[in-house]
Amino acid sequence: MTKGFGFTVSSTDGKARSGKITMPRGEVRTPAFMPVGTGGTVKAMYMDQVRELGADIILGNTYHLMLRPGAERVARLGGLHEFARWPEPILTDSGGFQVMSLAALRKVTEEGVAFQSHVDGSRHDMSPERSIEIQGLLDSDIQMQLDECVRLPAERDEIERAMELSLRWAERCKTAFGDQPGKAMFGIVQGGDDVALRERSASALAAMDLKGYAVGGLAVGEPQDVMLAMLQATCPLLPEDRPRYLMGVGTPDDIVRSVAEGIDMFDCVMPTRAGRHGLAYTRRGKVNLRNARHADDPRPLDEESSCPAARDYSRAYLHHLVRSNETLGGMLLSWNNLHYYQQLMAGIRGAIGEARYGDFTAEVQEQWARGDIAPL
Amino acid sequence: MTKGFGFTVSSTDGKARSGKITMPRGEVRTPAFMPVGTGGTVKAMYMDQVRELGADIILGNTYHLMLRPGAERVARLGGLHEFARWPEPILTDSGGFQVMSLAALRKVTEEGVAFQSHVDGSRHDMSPERSIEIQGLLDSDIQMQLDECVRLPAERDEIERAMELSLRWAERCKTAFGDQPGKAMFGIVQGGDDVALRERSASALAAMDLKGYAVGGLAVGEPQDVMLAMLQATCPLLPEDRPRYLMGVGTPDDIVRSVAEGIDMFDCVMPTRAGRHGLAYTRRGKVNLRNARHADDPRPLDEESSCPAARDYSRAYLHHLVRSNETLGGMLLSWNNLHYYQQLMAGIRGAIGEARYGDFTAEVQEQWARGDIAPL
Repeated sequence: MTKGFGFTVSSTDGKARSGKITMPRGEVRTPAFMPVGTGGTVKAMYMDQVRELGADIILGNTYHLMLRPGAERVARLGGLHEFARWPEPILTDSGGFQVMSLAALRKVTEEGVAFQSHVDGSRHDMSPERSIEIQGLLDSDIQMQLDECVRLPAERDEIERAMELSLRWAERCKTAFGDQPGKAMFGIVQGGDDVALRERSASALAAMDLKGYAVGGLAVGEPQDVMLAMLQATCPLLPEDRPRYLMGVGTPDDIVRSVAEGIDMFDCVMPTRAGRHGLAYTRRGKVNLRNARHADDPRPLDEESSCPAARDYSRAYLHHLVRSNETLGGMLLSWNNLHYYQQLMAGIRGAIGEARYGDFTAEVQEQWARGDIAPL
Repeated sequence: MTKGFGFTVSSTDGKARSGKITMPRGEVRTPAFMPVGTGGTVKAMYMDQVRELGADIILGNTYHLMLRPGAERVARLGGLHEFARWPEPILTDSGGFQVMSLAALRKVTEEGVAFQSHVDGSRHDMSPERSIEIQGLLDSDIQMQLDECVRLPAERDEIERAMELSLRWAERCKTAFGDQPGKAMFGIVQGGDDVALRERSASALAAMDLKGYAVGGLAVGEPQDVMLAMLQATCPLLPEDRPRYLMGVGTPDDIVRSVAEGIDMFDCVMPTRAGRHGLAYTRRGKVNLRNARHADDPRPLDEESSCPAARDYSRAYLHHLVRSNETLGGMLLSWNNLHYYQQLMAGIRGAIGEARYGDFTAEVQEQWARGDIAPL
């Protein structure tokens, strides 16, 4: 395995590209979907299962881990890979997004953000330097700059202020991160739904010569076409030889369309969260197992799937588990959903390699549109 | 595999005995511990795991399954084995115990018990005949008579009334069950904490020539010595060539001591319920992973265990999962606990086979008493 951090594009098809990110801990085939391991666990999954599904990298949440069990504790225990039993690469977010969405009494200044834990009310300060320090304590392979993500809709002035602050924080994170050959620190493009601000952010970050670039502040409720317009404005300004990561996205359709704009990496809680709420992602679209139509249906979710959760359990049984709030329901549907997402990514990579990404997109979208099998 | 239902004792050591129950769906090595699969799922476990741990048989709860998803529905879907993906033998209780402990507005008459569902308030009638009908719809291999289990402490008259009613219900269940060569219907000894009533119940049931006998109404809060006294009064009156099942028991120590009185089968929610609450059963006794002493402990629960949950995860990680209410915490600790229980049963069977059950009991009890490893 390589000692450095690298990214190679092996195929392109339009703006879509496939390749791999190499790091000492392993290779990540791109476009990649990163299952979210919020607090050191991909919810309701064994790590062995996550790996077997084809995930090359998972995401850890700095905010959650710094509060519980604590970054210094994780470091004493050998780092997040050892702690959570995931020896492959890990990407951590900066903590910024969850501070904005979960913490109480947050106050943003030039220095950083002060907040109260949603777990126990304890007070914390998060600066760009502290975020990088925490991500280092976790021994994260790909670390993210601290940014300020504003909730949309917002005034242009407010979006611009947060974007400019995020650029200054990117510089501070780059300095704090320093020279770590086997690891990477990514900048995050902000700018809300404003094309000019997105362009300003992307250009300024590109000039910093970072090892990778994320697009943040999207998938926060805006229409899909706004998200895609922001990618169209942003991706061409980011260096072609660096991975591009669209944070927190998304539905299978979001992913397929964002790959077409040149995105290489994704993360989203959707497959696991939806799974815990009785929702299955399949090649025939979303299936709500809570629906009474499944109560007497002996058929599996997808008889052609290679995932036991999709192939070997009846819809009637899954329906029963979901309705009874049985843990196994969330276990099976999270498994099914992560399997579907990883299969989708493998299909995307294959189609780009064969220069048939447009056809692939049309095929999967058509199958989603046809919908689920008819009730019995 | 045999076409009939049989029980063979292969070794005895004092009153303890080891052997096997044979049924068309498989063999059950005795003494056996049956994991509880309340609503068609052993909570937080995949059935493949349950089988791999060495369980030959699981228990299903008639009360839960009749309410959700419904016995007729399970029958349409091919029976409980097919529904829950457990092809090995299944024992079902009669529903009586949960009607008494969970249902609302229950009314016991000679005919049976009327009650309201704790799930949706719907009204149901459960007679001895209906209980056997439901267990047949579930396609249960070992079915239990409907009984009335009174809560202790209770007046002798009340205990006697319920015990005599249970005897009449046993006769009705025997008639309703009829002649099913590959399956069995067990009677249930009642009589509370009164030796004379227990003797009367056991003798009357023995005279019915049933395929197996349970001891019910224990492990409901009485001291362990009362439970053992009831077994001492009861077991000698039950035919030696029929399996004896102590319902709802219990702790590892309860099991070890009850085997010494001649019990062959057990079921208990303890390993899975305790697992979901952060409690681990180990050869060194109970370990509460919620305790802060584990927060920085990189050592596994039991480095010598063959169970990945016990051997491969740090106590610090388990502590973190439990404190954070992560599903994986309950998954891992249920796995560990069911593994420990099955290992204990294997040890019990081996010791009886070698006629060293007294030594075995002393050894495991001594190790429990020594307690967990010292904190770091």
